[in-house]
Amino acid sequence: MTDKKWVYLFSEVDQAEAYAGTWDGVRGLLGGKGANLGDMIRAGVPVPPGFTITTEACNAFQKTREFPEGMWDQVLAAVKALEEETGKKFGDPVNPMLVSVRSGSKFSMPGMMDTVLNLGLNEETAEGMIKITGNPGFVDDSYRRLVHMLGTVVLGIDDEYFEEPLEAYKAEKGYKLDIEMTADDWAEIIKTYLAVVKEHKGFDFPMDPYKQLEYAVKAVFDSWDSRRAIDYRRRENIPDDLGTAVNVQLMVFGNSGNNSGTGVAFTRNPQNGENEMYGEFLVNAQGEDVVAGIRNADPIAEMAQIWPEVYQQFFDITERLEHHYKEMQDVEFTVEDGKLWMLQTRNGKRTAKAAVKIAVDMVKEGLIDKVEAVKRVTPEQVDNLLHPQFSHEAIEQAHKDGRYFAKGVNASPGAAVGRIYFDPDTVQRKHQDEGQDVIMVRPFTKPDDVHGMLSAKGILTSEGGATSHAAVVARQFGVPCVVGASAIAIDAEKLQMVANGKTVKEGEWVSVDGTTGEVYVGQLELSQVDITEQKELMQLLSWADEISRLQVWANADYPADATRAREYGAKGIGLCRTEHMFFDVERLPDVQMMIMNAEETQRMLNSIEVLQHAYDTGKLEGRTLNEEEMAELKAEIEQETAKMRATPAAQAYFKALEIILPQQRGDFYGLFEAMDGLPVIIRLIDPPLHEFLPSMEELLVEVATMRAKGETEGLAEKENLLAVVQGLHESNPMMGLRGIRLGIVYPDIMKMQVRAIFEAACDAKLNGIDPHPEIMIPLTGIVTELEQVQPTLVQIAKDVMAEKGVQVDYQFGTMIEIPRACITAEEIAKYAEFFSFGTNDLTQMSFGYSRDDAERTFLAEYVEKGILPKNPFQTLDRKGVGALMKLAVEKGRSVRPDLTVGICGEHGGDPSSIEWCHLIGNNYVSCSPFRVPLARLATAHAQLKHG
Amino acid sequence: MTDKKWVYLFSEVDQAEAYAGTWDGVRGLLGGKGANLGDMIRAGVPVPPGFTITTEACNAFQKTREFPEGMWDQVLAAVKALEEETGKKFGDPVNPMLVSVRSGSKFSMPGMMDTVLNLGLNEETAEGMIKITGNPGFVDDSYRRLVHMLGTVVLGIDDEYFEEPLEAYKAEKGYKLDIEMTADDWAEIIKTYLAVVKEHKGFDFPMDPYKQLEYAVKAVFDSWDSRRAIDYRRRENIPDDLGTAVNVQLMVFGNSGNNSGTGVAFTRNPQNGENEMYGEFLVNAQGEDVVAGIRNADPIAEMAQIWPEVYQQFFDITERLEHHYKEMQDVEFTVEDGKLWMLQTRNGKRTAKAAVKIAVDMVKEGLIDKVEAVKRVTPEQVDNLLHPQFSHEAIEQAHKDGRYFAKGVNASPGAAVGRIYFDPDTVQRKHQDEGQDVIMVRPFTKPDDVHGMLSAKGILTSEGGATSHAAVVARQFGVPCVVGASAIAIDAEKLQMVANGKTVKEGEWVSVDGTTGEVYVGQLELSQVDITEQKELMQLLSWADEISRLQVWANADYPADATRAREYGAKGIGLCRTEHMFFDVERLPDVQMMIMNAEETQRMLNSIEVLQHAYDTGKLEGRTLNEEEMAELKAEIEQETAKMRATPAAQAYFKALEIILPQQRGDFYGLFEAMDGLPVIIRLIDPPLHEFLPSMEELLVEVATMRAKGETEGLAEKENLLAVVQGLHESNPMMGLRGIRLGIVYPDIMKMQVRAIFEAACDAKLNGIDPHPEIMIPLTGIVTELEQVQPTLVQIAKDVMAEKGVQVDYQFGTMIEIPRACITAEEIAKYAEFFSFGTNDLTQMSFGYSRDDAERTFLAEYVEKGILPKNPFQTLDRKGVGALMKLAVEKGRSVRPDLTVGICGEHGGDPSSIEWCHLIGNNYVSCSPFRVPLARLATAHAQLKHG
Repeated sequence: MTDKKWVYLFSEVDQAEAYAGTWDGVRGLLGGKGANLGDMIRAGVPVPPGFTITTEACNAFQKTREFPEGMWDQVLAAVKALEEETGKKFGDPVNPMLVSVRSGSKFSMPGMMDTVLNLGLNEETAEGMIKITGNPGFVDDSYRRLVHMLGTVVLGIDDEYFEEPLEAYKAEKGYKLDIEMTADDWAEIIKTYLAVVKEHKGFDFPMDPYKQLEYAVKAVFDSWDSRRAIDYRRRENIPDDLGTAVNVQLMVFGNSGNNSGTGVAFTRNPQNGENEMYGEFLVNAQGEDVVAGIRNADPIAEMAQIWPEVYQQFFDITERLEHHYKEMQDVEFTVEDGKLWMLQTRNGKRTAKAAVKIAVDMVKEGLIDKVEAVKRVTPEQVDNLLHPQFSHEAIEQAHKDGRYFAKGVNASPGAAVGRIYFDPDTVQRKHQDEGQDVIMVRPFTKPDDVHGMLSAKGILTSEGGATSHAAVVARQFGVPCVVGASAIAIDAEKLQMVANGKTVKEGEWVSVDGTTGEVYVGQLELSQVDITEQKELMQLLSWADEISRLQVWANADYPADATRAREYGAKGIGLCRTEHMFFDVERLPDVQMMIMNAEETQRMLNSIEVLQHAYDTGKLEGRTLNEEEMAELKAEIEQETAKMRATPAAQAYFKALEIILPQQRGDFYGLFEAMDGLPVIIRLIDPPLHEFLPSMEELLVEVATMRAKGETEGLAEKENLLAVVQGLHESNPMMGLRGIRLGIVYPDIMKMQVRAIFEAACDAKLNGIDPHPEIMIPLTGIVTELEQVQPTLVQIAKDVMAEKGVQVDYQFGTMIEIPRACITAEEIAKYAEFFSFGTNDLTQMSFGYSRDDAERTFLAEYVEKGILPKNPFQTLDRKGVGALMKLAVEKGRSVRPDLTVGICGEHGGDPSSIEWCHLIGNNYVSCSPFRVPLARLATAHAQLKHG
Repeated sequence: MTDKKWVYLFSEVDQAEAYAGTWDGVRGLLGGKGANLGDMIRAGVPVPPGFTITTEACNAFQKTREFPEGMWDQVLAAVKALEEETGKKFGDPVNPMLVSVRSGSKFSMPGMMDTVLNLGLNEETAEGMIKITGNPGFVDDSYRRLVHMLGTVVLGIDDEYFEEPLEAYKAEKGYKLDIEMTADDWAEIIKTYLAVVKEHKGFDFPMDPYKQLEYAVKAVFDSWDSRRAIDYRRRENIPDDLGTAVNVQLMVFGNSGNNSGTGVAFTRNPQNGENEMYGEFLVNAQGEDVVAGIRNADPIAEMAQIWPEVYQQFFDITERLEHHYKEMQDVEFTVEDGKLWMLQTRNGKRTAKAAVKIAVDMVKEGLIDKVEAVKRVTPEQVDNLLHPQFSHEAIEQAHKDGRYFAKGVNASPGAAVGRIYFDPDTVQRKHQDEGQDVIMVRPFTKPDDVHGMLSAKGILTSEGGATSHAAVVARQFGVPCVVGASAIAIDAEKLQMVANGKTVKEGEWVSVDGTTGEVYVGQLELSQVDITEQKELMQLLSWADEISRLQVWANADYPADATRAREYGAKGIGLCRTEHMFFDVERLPDVQMMIMNAEETQRMLNSIEVLQHAYDTGKLEGRTLNEEEMAELKAEIEQETAKMRATPAAQAYFKALEIILPQQRGDFYGLFEAMDGLPVIIRLIDPPLHEFLPSMEELLVEVATMRAKGETEGLAEKENLLAVVQGLHESNPMMGLRGIRLGIVYPDIMKMQVRAIFEAACDAKLNGIDPHPEIMIPLTGIVTELEQVQPTLVQIAKDVMAEKGVQVDYQFGTMIEIPRACITAEEIAKYAEFFSFGTNDLTQMSFGYSRDDAERTFLAEYVEKGILPKNPFQTLDRKGVGALMKLAVEKGRSVRPDLTVGICGEHGGDPSSIEWCHLIGNNYVSCSPFRVPLARLATAHAQLKHG
């Protein structure tokens, strides 16, 4: 392996040994910076010569902690070549050559890794340079920079040990800026710095230029695994095994006088996407001065004033670069004694808004096509554009005013301003009755709190993470939300919250930034978003729709949600959760009345059903009944039915159903109206019934307390309620009596719902609306469950349509959320006309995770330790859950080739999960209305990536 | 379809149109009885001629309620043929022909379906017969039998309306037996019977013989779907769609005088299997008299005395039949005026004991081979032989003495006698301290009660079904158990139970029959079982072992269980549940101390681990540390560790682990000793930690009560305990922090266990024992979990062996009980050296059922409604769970061809599930020691069936 090539040269003279077009994978081997330097050289752009050490060398070093065999020799040879080209010599006291050492990985990670400039300087070479340049101030400035950068970056000495003496010195001298320092001043500082190194490291600063180079290269290699680099990669989904390249390049000096300078610029405005040069430059400075903001830089436009020719050259080069890469470029440059040098070009980072505008503009300019434009914007950027936000200025001002309150996890993007209240009932009341904008503040939230959350402009919790209940619900409903702001102490008694020495009382204003996780006291200015006003975004999404095969539908329980979903481009409703309507404060008592009496009534109904079955078949115990016996049986059925109907339980039960039916009908009518002409999938009741009753734990404590205190008033009632709740209690409710199982044990509830759906649909049709109800039965695991439940429900649909004298198109289908349903999908598809994956439950059962418990106990640790790459409830686990989905689609379509397949879980709004749905042949994904635009882009991306 | 053949003739003259050997499926078409009648005819056995209507006709009738086209014409033609052969005429007043109509399906269902005799009699034909026979008593006896049978069986009139007038008449006349009735007496009775029919049905008894025949055939067809027939089929796994054939046969009369008679006999003793003729006969009687036990029948041996020649002919025929069928035969015969007629032969039903003895004897006699003998005995029969039982006599006597108490579900077979106690602590105390035989009586049981259950001879509950906790645990430990005896009211305050007007107080004796579900007051005599004394069974099982490919291992947590398992033929321990040892009353406090301090200690340990990791890698935040920094880090680690160790939490935690370690070591040593030379699979801790703490609900009530009453003593302690329990509380604990997840979050517990296992194994080896520990990690769902946990545990194993200076063979493997583990088994098998299916959890997660909840709420209804064929927790669901297992085996072996695969759930002792394990290529099944013999037979059956 000694002949392996670790080092690639680039220079104006010899051109580049490799560049972005040489072969596939050059960016991987040389990093983006290295490859682009090669590109520029080839394009005749003035670039200081140098060489790139490959990412492979970095990876080899990571494993053994040694440079790989042959690498250092190749570095030495490359230095030699550089010396020959420049006529200077590395470490030569007479005509010394200086170099910079910079990181550069395949994907740009700005500021995450290390850079060292001015390598090659020491006491002797500095002397030599001073002789050559006659500019001791410039040389000593460069020297002190080297000692500082090498001391901090390579040797790990805290920055403060360098900053403090410099500040003290300047203060003593009365200087404000570094440029006021003279050569002598810098010479003093260099002495101090060298002493700092000696003091903290116990050895002298390395004066040998080759030692400096070796140290710097190793430091850059190591910086690949720094905490901030790892964190960045995790956030950006960059693999850990790419490694970084190292670019060693001849130093050019922006700090050699007032005819020199340095700057960074974007070829378009990265904030708003306008097509204008955007950047800053500094006269007589080195690159890090701009980045670090030590001196106030000048707008790039001013460069045109002072150096018009250089600026024009610069402008032409950047325009060529933008056309070459067909992308907005982020460039670094240095002017040394009037000569322009380009040090770096890369595709520029930009805000979501700019990304969209630039992509759409470039299509108009004929630079790229629509497909490329769609590719250029990420789904996450689209998501970002949809939530109201605080302006940058407002945030800065708030910090200046000391109104920063606390920071938590940015759980649901967007900004919200409102008055705080601490319990969901008050939140709802303040919002509904008084029209207040409200921020709901809770230690954490529970399903009981949803009515409050829906009334709130924003949600703030002091506990829980990005996947806590509050976070999930908030994202679902597009409510800005910050969770787990642990600095906040909530005092529910005093009705106030305290953090960082500030107290906010109930009813006072706060501003919650769900995009950054920050919370401020008082009202920050909001910039509202209206997607339909974002012309470029609308344009881009329409291009995306032209590409996508996979449709995007939305989850919506209420007409208002459905309307918004439609505006955002949803092609149907993929999930309407009927039980959410049950939680409505006004309806809950009736729902509870239904539940409290369900079991007793059903027991009586079951006995009567046995008799009815005998009557219907005309046979009892295998014997055919004669007329007389049939008459007797009929009388018995009537008698038993009358007896049953007269019981308080049955009266309450059926009364409750009668009350709920028209309410549900009204809900559904609104949905059909909003989605006129488009499919609306309505899921029948899913959760276990005890979710609609008070918590067992609270009741236990209440009853025990009343008993211990000898309180009798209301006790019997509480005890009765407790008995029902205990009867319905399950040790693992997630896997208990819910979904289709309820449809079998308590069939009347689903029957009532189907009647309500079809009454609403028929009414709508009669009123000129075009309704497309699709009834979804949840939690099927065995085909026989559908066999038992579905025909009865279909019959009700037919009965209602006959009663109303109108026909509507409809379908019956099922959720696929039980592993066994996937495995036996070819059986289930015999009944189900459509499948909709419920990947939350499917993930729970495939992994054997109870989501709420797992996220509280071990899931974060699993992700942290790399046992799971991501939280599988946020991003679909393809190997396990995904494989089951694929199997289900294949098996389902094997018996029903036109089976419609969708997904309606939270994953339906996650780009990676959407990609998987595309790959397995789903027809649509359904997500929250606020994620529809994101999903539209993600479906297009999936199509472009996989065809 | 008019030329379809519905009717097949058989007669001595023409031989049979079809018989058991004609073609495959004859038994299905003609039923067992019909096919065997054909067989006998062909073998020259005297059989009255007749014809068989096919099961296809029955099935066609079931669908349309009409005879299929052409059937009745074929019946009429067959009657004609019969008339020609006999020279008599059906319905002819001068020389009438009479026939019998009997059911006969593919599989014998004794007594489940209908029979009508003497068809063809009416006022006119009776007259004619009297003229011919000169025996009016015989004819009128036959006639009244017809009216009675047709009235009850076909017309559905209650039997009492016929029995009561006959009894009244006999009483009036002073007769005791039917044979005392004269012809005139019968004529009176016939008049009464005809009036009964008219009164109850509103129409006259059908005098037309063809109408009688039509009614009777329809009645037999209908009887296929009678409740008792359906129940029987369900119990015996006979498909519902087979239908029954109908055999119409010339009547021969055992009631035509004292030279006539009728009887039933077995060619061997069906109670004990002895090779002797066993049966009964009656002179001057018709068949149903024997069956109904109206007259005391005589032992068959006496027939040799009164009709020596007929007996010899009978004996020769039955011997020929036994040799022909190579099976013990159950025959019916009639002697008419000295001539023997065989009416039926079939394989005889027998007790389990007889089945084993007959099978083994027949091998010795050279009648069948060993393989056939193994086939002849069912696994269920073997199971039956292993549990102590009450003798038949003892049960009869108890009923006579009025000691019958109640009946529940026969949950765990075997009989138990003991004194009743109502709480598990008392049960344990009475058993351990006073040596009493105890029956534990509870409304239902919980995991907390297990110590009582293990001390009890038998268990009785008033609630719960065959799969309730009590039932499952009882079966597992082979404790006889009756559950859900709902007639029993348990009064825990008065310490007594009441049922059927009887009261049993604490400490009084009851006898519980887990085989039948019956409970008696007082002590019934027990017949004890020692498998090793059952020579024939031992012989049969050793033959089974020669056949089987699949091995049988046992689940055993304690050395005594292991010893028993080995005696019963287990080839290894497939599951030792280490946590059962934690529940021991003496150990639980230490286990609780460990749990109460686990979280706090682990948090500190995790912080130290971060430092340790930096020290081990020599890098912090990507930067390589120098010597000085390393020394500082080391000091910090030592300091933090000392600080941690000094906390009360850590002290308690590590002390508890130190206490538990030697206890576990002792447990494991005993197991290795008992299983010397055989593999012992030890599963590391599996349940969620809160299972070892008191119930949250109870604590909530306790604390609330203390608070309300203002009690302060001990309150803080309780509150602290409650806080820990609430911290560990999970909404779905089945899917929570357990198994390998505990191994990741609280690694010390599993580490302690592995150390204990290897210390025990090394000690054993040093003492001359040959231990084969296999460490099983539960609940793996992701290969990275094993990647994280297994190497650390393997290192501990190696460390211990190095310390002890001895090597033992060992393996590390995992439970496969998470659906995702099946789907990604090719990844998991890279680490796991063996798989063991945990099909209880796998069933829970594949179906999305919480077993405890589901069995209490909807599972029974599912089975009843046919949504599920069986409880999938008892018999493996092949389509869903089974398919996942198959996938796991295939994927696992694809990367590790020698992967050992087993099953260790309750399914391991279920024959159908064992068959599936055979089919998918398992290496072994592991079940409770008491089910090992059954499983040995089941594995052989699987091999014989599938090869």
